[in-house]
Amino acid sequence: VEVRPQSGHYVKLRAASVPAEPEAVKLPAARCVPRMGELVLRVLSAGREPKKVQLGSGAVDPELLPTRRLMKLTAAVARVHAERCVRYEAPEGAKELRTLLARRSVEWGCPMRADEIVITTGAMEAMELSLRATTKAGDAVAVESPTVYWLLQLLEQLGLVVVELPTYPRHGICLDELEAAITAHDVKACLLVPSFNNPLGSCMPDEKRRDLVALLAAKKVTLIEDDVYGDLHHDGARPRPVKAFDERGEVLTCGSFSKTLAPGLRVGFVAAGAWRDRLVLMKGSQTGATATLPQLAVAEFLRSGGYDHHLRSFRRVLRLNLQRLSAVVGETFPEGTRMTRPAGGMFSWVEMPDHVDALALFERADAQRIMFAPGPVFSASGRYRNCLRLSFAQPWTDRFENALRTLGKLAREQART
Amino acid sequence: VEVRPQSGHYVKLRAASVPAEPEAVKLPAARCVPRMGELVLRVLSAGREPKKVQLGSGAVDPELLPTRRLMKLTAAVARVHAERCVRYEAPEGAKELRTLLARRSVEWGCPMRADEIVITTGAMEAMELSLRATTKAGDAVAVESPTVYWLLQLLEQLGLVVVELPTYPRHGICLDELEAAITAHDVKACLLVPSFNNPLGSCMPDEKRRDLVALLAAKKVTLIEDDVYGDLHHDGARPRPVKAFDERGEVLTCGSFSKTLAPGLRVGFVAAGAWRDRLVLMKGSQTGATATLPQLAVAEFLRSGGYDHHLRSFRRVLRLNLQRLSAVVGETFPEGTRMTRPAGGMFSWVEMPDHVDALALFERADAQRIMFAPGPVFSASGRYRNCLRLSFAQPWTDRFENALRTLGKLAREQART
Repeated sequence: VEVRPQSGHYVKLRAASVPAEPEAVKLPAARCVPRMGELVLRVLSAGREPKKVQLGSGAVDPELLPTRRLMKLTAAVARVHAERCVRYEAPEGAKELRTLLARRSVEWGCPMRADEIVITTGAMEAMELSLRATTKAGDAVAVESPTVYWLLQLLEQLGLVVVELPTYPRHGICLDELEAAITAHDVKACLLVPSFNNPLGSCMPDEKRRDLVALLAAKKVTLIEDDVYGDLHHDGARPRPVKAFDERGEVLTCGSFSKTLAPGLRVGFVAAGAWRDRLVLMKGSQTGATATLPQLAVAEFLRSGGYDHHLRSFRRVLRLNLQRLSAVVGETFPEGTRMTRPAGGMFSWVEMPDHVDALALFERADAQRIMFAPGPVFSASGRYRNCLRLSFAQPWTDRFENALRTLGKLAREQART
Repeated sequence: VEVRPQSGHYVKLRAASVPAEPEAVKLPAARCVPRMGELVLRVLSAGREPKKVQLGSGAVDPELLPTRRLMKLTAAVARVHAERCVRYEAPEGAKELRTLLARRSVEWGCPMRADEIVITTGAMEAMELSLRATTKAGDAVAVESPTVYWLLQLLEQLGLVVVELPTYPRHGICLDELEAAITAHDVKACLLVPSFNNPLGSCMPDEKRRDLVALLAAKKVTLIEDDVYGDLHHDGARPRPVKAFDERGEVLTCGSFSKTLAPGLRVGFVAAGAWRDRLVLMKGSQTGATATLPQLAVAEFLRSGGYDHHLRSFRRVLRLNLQRLSAVVGETFPEGTRMTRPAGGMFSWVEMPDHVDALALFERADAQRIMFAPGPVFSASGRYRNCLRLSFAQPWTDRFENALRTLGKLAREQART
């Protein structure tokens, strides 16, 4: 049992209105070939419909992003660097962007070298390349459970076997279970989101990160780290990527600007350590290079200080929205509902009483143009029928709050039947 | 033996100055696992060095592209559609771009439906997805020989076996050899560039395209068609993609704007027919979606008529440059040198006398800051030591012409030793 300190955010709320946090999943690590199907497609497509109220979307609302400023700057870059923008960039990506990323990583306490960084078409391509470089079809890959559907889809596409690890809502995967799973299922790689993962929002403490690296080094298992939420700590310092504790260059850390700046730019990266040359070769024949203008625009936005300025206010909004979300869920959802209290990121995981069916709730909410992400899409083995993911990276409008209250009411109605 | 009509472009040149065309490769179809190594990386990296004269680059020089107009328009799109540009696009791509592509394809006589088109990060991703969807590691894939190094690299990355087919400089692969190879090597897919391929510049006649489709349908072999040079016919009508002759939806036709508009935008597509849903799913977990702004910019450039306007002048330049290139090669290269006379595209393939070593020539030219693409990078089985690829998608400057004359001189010197 892990220590769960009281979160400091909730002092101003009535204690009764804040739902308790869920326990870690009790089931043992499961090994299965993921089959993510129709439901995921429906959830993804509903997540792009502007007429629906997005309570669980994986995409940050553009209103919370520096949309105008960024696109004004992008326009200026297009004019000033027209010739550069028309040319192919090198497969490893624009040097100025890699250099700025390396500089930032020093501030995080996890120095990445500019020449080990490969710029990718979002963190998705970073993870896809990392998986293809370090595994082959049929290999077992350990992931947190619950974990986001598109990672499960990616593993399915690559013919990989998934080992779902029980995960603590606060501190990430259970290392004992991981150690057992590595032996039992011959795990070749771990694909983890150690900082504010999607959907739980858990964040591994430094000590645990150190132990994780030691365990994986001893067992010769590769770690692919998805760090896309690392910049979204609500308070205090940015968590250091697990890579900070790796001395062998065997951790591949993937990041992007899709959760913090502009998903549509498709700019991500991987600090690939010893795997760098292999990844550059693969990137070169998979997408050639990432589009030039988006890379230069992100570099310019970083250089100008616009990114850090934006992050400061974005984090405040996320923190405040999470408080509001917790209060409304506590007030409106069925008794016994639990909910994670992440210290960063943009998602909270809601666990309703066992008999409440999130898929039936999804249908009823959909009829009222309310969208959330139902639990079963976060598991390759069909778990989490009573769970759902909510996002707080949406503007807190009356429309949003009312939809959330309606969802709570629908859930309460279902809990009574 | 195929009919080889005289090209009409050369009437004004001295007959003696135009090199003869090469024969098709005499060797039988070869089956091998490609190992593209250091040399390819060196050639690619030399191709990005602005201080070198690029005689064989795979990239069109930005001076021949509508660089200013396109980037001015891109800047305007970024400002006007800021919110849209920040958002994730759907994995299949922006509807307006798919609709415009579908409309253009009707003009080519090869109607593609907007809802079978998937927008990709350049034609590279289109082909990578097409190969991954239709083959598995260990499968044999037939390609033209010579064929461009990055396709061979891609096949290597995916663990595929390459069957190199003898290819006529004018009319593409030999269908008899293809039929024999399908049986002998259990070929699962063909990856061909039927219109102005890279590096030969060959273009299959309609009748042969029809026969190809019939043969592949009978043998149940998938065709992946790379049509990136289709818009670059120097005269007459645009060649119809092979897909025009396919009634089963089993041909995947890949295209892009990287050879005609702006490589750095990374906008390509695949008209995937019956494979569409599969590709959208794979695209969704590989790069999520193609960057939004480049898609909208290309759509706007198409819509405005800017693309067709540009193509008209670009084609004239390519035609004229090829005439100049042929004349200088005829004048300066060793006696017995042959050279293809493509009716479209941007490359010509030069076959020097057997004993002239293109790799030694590459080193000598490199010392003088002259870059071309040596023959061996176009084969997975080490052929073409005496060949090289030249590009005529470069501004015809004194610097370019002088470098070409120097290269001819170096080749003549080598021919004498």
